[in-house]
Amino acid sequence: MTIRVTVWNEFRHEKDTKHPASTLYPNGLHVPIVSYLQAKGLEAYAATLDEPEHGLTDAVLANTDVLTWWGHMAHGEVSDKTVDKVQARVLEGMGLIVLHSGHHSKIFRRMLGTTANLKWREADERERIWVVERGHPIAEGLGEYITLDKEEMYGEVFDIPAPDELVFVSWFEGGEVFRSGCCWNRGRGRMFYFRPGHESFPTYHNPEILQVIYNAVRWATPHSFAPTPVVNVKQSLEQISPKEPVAD
Amino acid sequence: MTIRVTVWNEFRHEKDTKHPASTLYPNGLHVPIVSYLQAKGLEAYAATLDEPEHGLTDAVLANTDVLTWWGHMAHGEVSDKTVDKVQARVLEGMGLIVLHSGHHSKIFRRMLGTTANLKWREADERERIWVVERGHPIAEGLGEYITLDKEEMYGEVFDIPAPDELVFVSWFEGGEVFRSGCCWNRGRGRMFYFRPGHESFPTYHNPEILQVIYNAVRWATPHSFAPTPVVNVKQSLEQISPKEPVAD
Amino acid sequence: MTIRVTVWNEFRHEKDTKHPASTLYPNGLHVPIVSYLQAKGLEAYAATLDEPEHGLTDAVLANTDVLTWWGHMAHGEVSDKTVDKVQARVLEGMGLIVLHSGHHSKIFRRMLGTTANLKWREADERERIWVVERGHPIAEGLGEYITLDKEEMYGEVFDIPAPDELVFVSWFEGGEVFRSGCCWNRGRGRMFYFRPGHESFPTYHNPEILQVIYNAVRWATPHSFAPTPVVNVKQSLEQISPKEPVAD
Amino acid sequence: MTIRVTVWNEFRHEKDTKHPASTLYPNGLHVPIVSYLQAKGLEAYAATLDEPEHGLTDAVLANTDVLTWWGHMAHGEVSDKTVDKVQARVLEGMGLIVLHSGHHSKIFRRMLGTTANLKWREADERERIWVVERGHPIAEGLGEYITLDKEEMYGEVFDIPAPDELVFVSWFEGGEVFRSGCCWNRGRGRMFYFRPGHESFPTYHNPEILQVIYNAVRWATPHSFAPTPVVNVKQSLEQISPKEPVAD
Repeated sequence: MTIRVTVWNEFRHEKDTKHPASTLYPNGLHVPIVSYLQAKGLEAYAATLDEPEHGLTDAVLANTDVLTWWGHMAHGEVSDKTVDKVQARVLEGMGLIVLHSGHHSKIFRRMLGTTANLKWREADERERIWVVERGHPIAEGLGEYITLDKEEMYGEVFDIPAPDELVFVSWFEGGEVFRSGCCWNRGRGRMFYFRPGHESFPTYHNPEILQVIYNAVRWATPHSFAPTPVVNVKQSLEQISPKEPVAD
Repeated sequence: MTIRVTVWNEFRHEKDTKHPASTLYPNGLHVPIVSYLQAKGLEAYAATLDEPEHGLTDAVLANTDVLTWWGHMAHGEVSDKTVDKVQARVLEGMGLIVLHSGHHSKIFRRMLGTTANLKWREADERERIWVVERGHPIAEGLGEYITLDKEEMYGEVFDIPAPDELVFVSWFEGGEVFRSGCCWNRGRGRMFYFRPGHESFPTYHNPEILQVIYNAVRWATPHSFAPTPVVNVKQSLEQISPKEPVAD
Repeated sequence: MTIRVTVWNEFRHEKDTKHPASTLYPNGLHVPIVSYLQAKGLEAYAATLDEPEHGLTDAVLANTDVLTWWGHMAHGEVSDKTVDKVQARVLEGMGLIVLHSGHHSKIFRRMLGTTANLKWREADERERIWVVERGHPIAEGLGEYITLDKEEMYGEVFDIPAPDELVFVSWFEGGEVFRSGCCWNRGRGRMFYFRPGHESFPTYHNPEILQVIYNAVRWATPHSFAPTPVVNVKQSLEQISPKEPVAD
Repeated sequence: MTIRVTVWNEFRHEKDTKHPASTLYPNGLHVPIVSYLQAKGLEAYAATLDEPEHGLTDAVLANTDVLTWWGHMAHGEVSDKTVDKVQARVLEGMGLIVLHSGHHSKIFRRMLGTTANLKWREADERERIWVVERGHPIAEGLGEYITLDKEEMYGEVFDIPAPDELVFVSWFEGGEVFRSGCCWNRGRGRMFYFRPGHESFPTYHNPEILQVIYNAVRWATPHSFAPTPVVNVKQSLEQISPKEPVAD
């Protein structure tokens, strides 16, 4: 069955003709991601903040196996109702891939229960993303590390629950480290955070970065959608012996 | 330094003279917990739902090392503002021990990002709480298991993030199992969920149950309160080399 | 690419005509496993203790993606040299599925660093294997639990490192619980322990049990085999500044 | 009760008058560690490779709460019998702190089941050890990071099981990262690996490094020593119903 991916993008920086993003990603930074996933044989569609319901209608969510999320300057404009629906879908099994500044999105903080705060610096510095869990499906096909000559720095402490699996750790030229590739299971869904992707750099044109996103989408694709029982079980599976009344 | 514990209780069932809780815990189920912790040398105080600000003023929270939480029928009456403040304190380092039906409290769901749904049955059935991580501080002084002759059943699937450490697993007479003692780290705070404690049974008079709560309080006591930096780092720790302009 | 599975079996009980295993599994308990995996389209072959090199020659291991392991009465007869080779292959990426009494095999203890001790009882008792991680690939297609009407009991404490992912927990009629489905990553390889499979019961004829083994094989299939560097790195990736001599 | 620590050191480099260690640590690099722990009120003793039974007699081990381990050039000279005994004691509850090049010791590999291989470089480079789990007892009293102006580089991939808790990640001037502070539970024992400590540098005179070792000793001190049952349980805790004979 073909994997259905919805690539969500805030899509604001790219419309500002004075911003480097408008040159790097004239039609939105979701475009190279959608294109790459389609070329790999997936069904991939874009959805953006300024569409009705942010492009995430019930029908779209019901038909999404994996949702990727990029946002930055307008996290507050995402409606709480949409956040509620996305959370519910993740707990039902939909995969969620959060990219770069999406760390401060409502949905990511909601899923984690923490602030997702971090340190940051914009200084055209080199990032080297090291693989620390070599056998992980999200690292498939990579070498020992990915080098990005210019990226924004994100530094520890990253206020997240310790990931269920840590796949990447970044080195930054200016002296920091960061847990850059983090996996969590939540309900029946799988989540992955992937650090790089500042809007002023051509990161989403880098084939290694795109491959990681593709690997993550495959990893996060739901395996089963058995309904979760939330029930008052009237009948027991085994016989329960009669007890004396409480005489405390 | 003495550990300061705030034992929070919804304190409603106990005021209903028709409810068994009114006999088992005439002054509230928090009383035996507070008494036990005090007898062990801790500073322990009660706080309850119907006090102003639910008894959790800024001053109380600022002076609490570990907060325990029992609620059931009135989760919805806890104000969102209080939940916000408790969450912030946990992320700063305050320990949080969630008891029994507190699994559906706003604060627990908020911290976890999941529904905390489960199966349940009230059938006077036996529960046997097995230690699965013997060297854990929360299991200190226990034998292989604790037996409760009558308890409410809680059954899997328990919709929680996989605990960072799983200390107890319960067996139920009616055929179910449950992850009964779960540890998580969130921010600088530590959280523990402990399953038993239905209000119709004398569970909080059981010395082994009280010992687990005491152990958990000690485990969750914060070790350090270094402020968490959330900063735009203007200066780098190491020199950053000049780069070519992006020419994508 | 077709997944290549080697199904290893001690194959001793089944040759003892007085043992129930000789009736339940006249050609070895590996046979229903091999047949099931083949019917699912995998390349599956048997290997047994009494073959030369226990059927695990260098050629066989080099061509195995996933190895399953059942042993019981003759763990000590497996040569240390074979254990060394299997360990090395797992660290290179080969999956390893350890079944039931294989918990005390040399290879399992070697991989874990613990004794893998447990409690046990043979009493024709019911086991109910509960899924606790619903979204996990190894639980794909299952309901809430699997019931085995008669099985040997294995009880906690199970002396293992806490699993990286816990998929199943068993309930036993006689009053115990057990972590029945445990995942670990070791090197580039993935390991899964699956509890049921006592030789006196028809467990390996149960289609749900076979499905779990199949799911586990797929989950444990290696994703990448990049060589692991163990090197003295003479050249640095970044320039290292000259330092003052140590003047302690 | 006073914590009893045995500080084990290979103690070879320091006896070589041409080696910088002979100047930095004329009586052995264990001396500053022992002194620091004693000054903090712990009972700390040294044990070294060339003593009878490597200084680790049954009596010494039986009276050790936490064992720290530094070795490098003579891992192979540690007897397997000693390794067996240390492993057994850890599983019983003794803490084990493995330092720097102890990563390739027999006991560390034995406990982990992996090679503990890594990359390394000796180039007088700066290491910055970042705290990534701020609320952890092992990070108590530290700032955001520890800087060591000159250290040996250890780089990923570090072939270890993913730690149960990751406390520190190192940044190296030459471009690598490393999981520098790793916690594991094994049996009833707790283990911690701490990366820095090359014998040619004054690392064990650094008070922050010594504080981490002290914190780790406290964290690894056993909480309970309940015996681990390995028993064939003849009697069940609950009644087991009679079953039909197997008719497969």
